[in-house]
Amino acid sequence: MAELLKGKAVAEAINQRSIDTVSMLKENGIQPSLAIFRVGNKEDDLSYERGALKRCGEVGVETIQYIFDEDVSEETFYQKLEEANRNDTIHGILIFRPLPKRFDDEKLRNSICPEKDVDGCSDLSLAGVFTDKELGFAPCTAQSVVEMLDHYQIDLKGKNVVVIGRSLVIGKPVSMLLLKRNATVTICHSRSTDLPAIASKADILVCAIGKAEMIDHSYVNPNQIIIDVGINWNEEKQKLCGDVNFEDVETKVKAISPVPGGIGSITTAVLVSHVVEAAHRKI
Amino acid sequence: MAELLKGKAVAEAINQRSIDTVSMLKENGIQPSLAIFRVGNKEDDLSYERGALKRCGEVGVETIQYIFDEDVSEETFYQKLEEANRNDTIHGILIFRPLPKRFDDEKLRNSICPEKDVDGCSDLSLAGVFTDKELGFAPCTAQSVVEMLDHYQIDLKGKNVVVIGRSLVIGKPVSMLLLKRNATVTICHSRSTDLPAIASKADILVCAIGKAEMIDHSYVNPNQIIIDVGINWNEEKQKLCGDVNFEDVETKVKAISPVPGGIGSITTAVLVSHVVEAAHRKI
Repeated sequence: MAELLKGKAVAEAINQRSIDTVSMLKENGIQPSLAIFRVGNKEDDLSYERGALKRCGEVGVETIQYIFDEDVSEETFYQKLEEANRNDTIHGILIFRPLPKRFDDEKLRNSICPEKDVDGCSDLSLAGVFTDKELGFAPCTAQSVVEMLDHYQIDLKGKNVVVIGRSLVIGKPVSMLLLKRNATVTICHSRSTDLPAIASKADILVCAIGKAEMIDHSYVNPNQIIIDVGINWNEEKQKLCGDVNFEDVETKVKAISPVPGGIGSITTAVLVSHVVEAAHRKI
Repeated sequence: MAELLKGKAVAEAINQRSIDTVSMLKENGIQPSLAIFRVGNKEDDLSYERGALKRCGEVGVETIQYIFDEDVSEETFYQKLEEANRNDTIHGILIFRPLPKRFDDEKLRNSICPEKDVDGCSDLSLAGVFTDKELGFAPCTAQSVVEMLDHYQIDLKGKNVVVIGRSLVIGKPVSMLLLKRNATVTICHSRSTDLPAIASKADILVCAIGKAEMIDHSYVNPNQIIIDVGINWNEEKQKLCGDVNFEDVETKVKAISPVPGGIGSITTAVLVSHVVEAAHRKI
């Protein structure tokens, strides 16, 4: 049986670090604060928001919610966003996306001050991930993968890491973060030839394809560590599942992060740590 | 003997495309123009500048040279740069770097308007390469690798490409450009374990390490295509050489780009094509 890389312990460790930093910041008269922008009441958004609010409360980060009806004008939304950008007591801004289709997502996303872009969605944040500079923040899910590997003391230096998926939310940024840790990184995708052959040679396999249970035993080897970033709904079994066919793979690898209870349990802790870090950078 | 992937034919094809576009632009009353910023008289800069001026002349791109003494103040340099940014008749800006050490390279680099950053050196240009958007331009050498592969009709889709080197000038951006062409891309570097084993499995090997003749027969396979991006000086032989030990490798691979006469022969053609493209984007 593989070692289970659970997210809860990772999130708790990140939170503890955040609590310590918040305490230090408060001694310096700084109260870290997150502004949340949400349009409408999508269940996914509400669920993530509840998690983020709870996490902020535990850590001592204040929250300000900008909540808009579905029919809000882009101008009103933009004005409030600019208000939050200018407000020195707000350190982080989270926008729930996708926004209504009539909105200019690109413009709004890039309107967030990079130093407040705690969810890493602006072009300059991504430029920072690419160039390895503190222009903004890495996307939370990508950062969560690195946090998990660090927490379980999985050495990355010189290791062959295969990342399946090349999205801007996970695949590409996590590849850059792992490269920074001196891993040798192979980026695969739907057009890659003979994926199982490539994946099964990896020391560490990061699955971020978004296809339910696609990764079976043909993709793995007994010494492999698997990080499953996928969060998919399995209609047949009526339950959440990852990109990995957990039952098929679990006995055939060294370690694996479960879904649920893996990477998904870390992302809000990372988000809040980014808010704390954003406040910290201002000292 | 391997097929020799020479740069000259690639550069000529790029130039011909540029000439055609310039002709169309002129019919629309637009004269493409490149501003060159140079401090001092370093031989490397002068040599590249001569090449760029010649290429611009051939293609019909105007050039404006901003040449400064070694002791120019950063403020004067910056003022002229801003002038070029604001000047609508200038479509591309090239700054020879490294600049004097007292200059704030990061600030100046990022002061170039992304749409005029034809050498792809600003953070937003790199963000564009990472996110696959037209924010600026790819670094010319990285783009030259893709131009060469395209010219020799080397299919990238699903191919295993190994890039050795992770710099922001070549390794990282070329990896993103190749990923965009649906290659499976492995990024290696000095900390990678067992580089020859990884490299020798590649369909296409891109060498951008900057170590003279490091890549020998142990890195290759008979069906491999090698793009040698290195330009190094071999003290012993008193000649230019690439990252590949050409004599050792030439008979053992399918195709290889020589040094000199390979990628280095394409970069100014790409630079000039970027100026033309920058002017074209304004229509």
